[in-house]
Amino acid sequence: MIRAYAALEKGGELKPFEYDPKPLGSEDVEIDVEYCGICHSDLSMLHNDWGMTQYPFVPGHEVVGKIADVGSAVKKLQVGQRVGLGWYSRSCMTCEWCMSGNHNLCATAEGTIVGRYGGFADKVRAHEAWVAPLPDAMQPVSAGPLFCGGITVFNPIVQFDVKPTDRVGVIGIGGLGHMALRFLHAWGCDVSAFSSSADKEPEAREMGANHFINSRDPNALKSVEGSFDLILSTVNADLDWSTYIACLRPKGRLHFVGVVPNPISTEIFPLIMAQRSISGSPLGSPATVTQMLDFATRHQIEPIIETFSFDQVNEALEHLRSGKARYRIVLKH
Amino acid sequence: MIRAYAALEKGGELKPFEYDPKPLGSEDVEIDVEYCGICHSDLSMLHNDWGMTQYPFVPGHEVVGKIADVGSAVKKLQVGQRVGLGWYSRSCMTCEWCMSGNHNLCATAEGTIVGRYGGFADKVRAHEAWVAPLPDAMQPVSAGPLFCGGITVFNPIVQFDVKPTDRVGVIGIGGLGHMALRFLHAWGCDVSAFSSSADKEPEAREMGANHFINSRDPNALKSVEGSFDLILSTVNADLDWSTYIACLRPKGRLHFVGVVPNPISTEIFPLIMAQRSISGSPLGSPATVTQMLDFATRHQIEPIIETFSFDQVNEALEHLRSGKARYRIVLKH
Repeated sequence: MIRAYAALEKGGELKPFEYDPKPLGSEDVEIDVEYCGICHSDLSMLHNDWGMTQYPFVPGHEVVGKIADVGSAVKKLQVGQRVGLGWYSRSCMTCEWCMSGNHNLCATAEGTIVGRYGGFADKVRAHEAWVAPLPDAMQPVSAGPLFCGGITVFNPIVQFDVKPTDRVGVIGIGGLGHMALRFLHAWGCDVSAFSSSADKEPEAREMGANHFINSRDPNALKSVEGSFDLILSTVNADLDWSTYIACLRPKGRLHFVGVVPNPISTEIFPLIMAQRSISGSPLGSPATVTQMLDFATRHQIEPIIETFSFDQVNEALEHLRSGKARYRIVLKH
Repeated sequence: MIRAYAALEKGGELKPFEYDPKPLGSEDVEIDVEYCGICHSDLSMLHNDWGMTQYPFVPGHEVVGKIADVGSAVKKLQVGQRVGLGWYSRSCMTCEWCMSGNHNLCATAEGTIVGRYGGFADKVRAHEAWVAPLPDAMQPVSAGPLFCGGITVFNPIVQFDVKPTDRVGVIGIGGLGHMALRFLHAWGCDVSAFSSSADKEPEAREMGANHFINSRDPNALKSVEGSFDLILSTVNADLDWSTYIACLRPKGRLHFVGVVPNPISTEIFPLIMAQRSISGSPLGSPATVTQMLDFATRHQIEPIIETFSFDQVNEALEHLRSGKARYRIVLKH
């Protein structure tokens, strides 16, 4: 039996919940969960905001732990090895996207908490391809958030070939945004933090921001028109996207990794006249996760976390919901 | 004196109009106009749809003719040489975009018909950088449309590194779209034509479309969901863009070269889940125009045109306005 924490209904409090896993798949591994980060998408799923939640719902997709068992065909992982697991747990491994190293774009990739039970538990399982060995130099307690929030902001840097000479803006200095600042700083970019919380400026600068822009100040936004090669939006809120598009340089890109509630809209001239793009991306492939872990280790990049014990899971969720998390919450056994 | 055709007011009939040009600039050339294509943007400017028209307004920015005079510092062009001139006539030549070969993204690039008199005239002038020698093998009568419509659809193929293995859709089989089909066919792509005019299918296939999709048929659109690496929209009309975004493969791009009247809008999930982009671009740089002319010559690509004499300019504009042009109109002396 696997002991987990589950909501039995939409938005419900998490309660102890046990389930009997099927026999371990031949290419799957079982992880003894040591730590599990909490992501805003755990909340979105808990409340069925995206219409794909099944109850009982066990959140948790930023797992760090040790391999407890391996299927008969597992090749790269051994029992006892410390690993991480993120949003995806499985993909088909044979479609053109999996075969070209873009497993995160596999049409049948399975979310760790979508239609299956996640990492708020003593154990969790996944296909070995989606489980990454943790570098020895990396702190296990704070590594979990890299596997969802971290890769989500690292991946576009790789996908869109961001250069150290680029000027990059990050909208939202929270769970994702603070990791983006750290990655982009280490990448060598000129980094700007856009935040509606003016009090975050000192910390944003410590995280690597060269500039801080109070996004509630129209003059501040006006002053950076035409400035950025890339603006990365990490927020879950509707902003005036036209304002941010105007902040892009020619060939610039407004890229979304946060799920905003309402459709985004733009006049066509600001795109056409300066060859600008708008785009989005989901997480990253296992190969990119490996690159991220190596890069983060070499540059000593880790998420800033607050820890709660697993039996405080509801308090931890409330802390995140209230917007008070600085900057990512990790549950520990 | 330069003899031209001008509208004296918004939407007005074009009438003979003479103006006295200033002394020829040292880096400028004067072109004896032989032919001038008519572009939908001549109509948009005539009606001041974009709020930047000055009257008297002389349209015309798809010019082919011979160099009549050169300024004292002109280096690459000689009197008598046959050349083409498109949407842009001048750029600053010193900003980072001009200096990096992206002259079409120069913030102060001047449109041939924006704040100055265009090519519906016996002569027109431009900076030599924006005037391209016409390859000897190219038909002068039909080459004009390459300098605006042609480069507009050729440029994104270059900018976004379209590969011969890509599947590309073209929305709208008109002045721009028919050239896009020819370029993409010669580029080696799998090419689909999206058109609301089912009767254009035979011609679209002759132009290089491997597939024809009747865009008024929801089932036809449904059948190509997730199919395209690039969809190029050449239309000036508002479509249901979500439908076309759904037709993109992972990493696919919906790219606009036609100015659509209303803002484009999309839910964020279809972008995020498949790493899709939306973008736009204006014309192309002189370097890309040169590549296009070489490519078009080698592949014997020319626009399909109807000709009118310059004194039939109002009939020609009405023919374009009515949507009957097949596929581009050229005025000739």
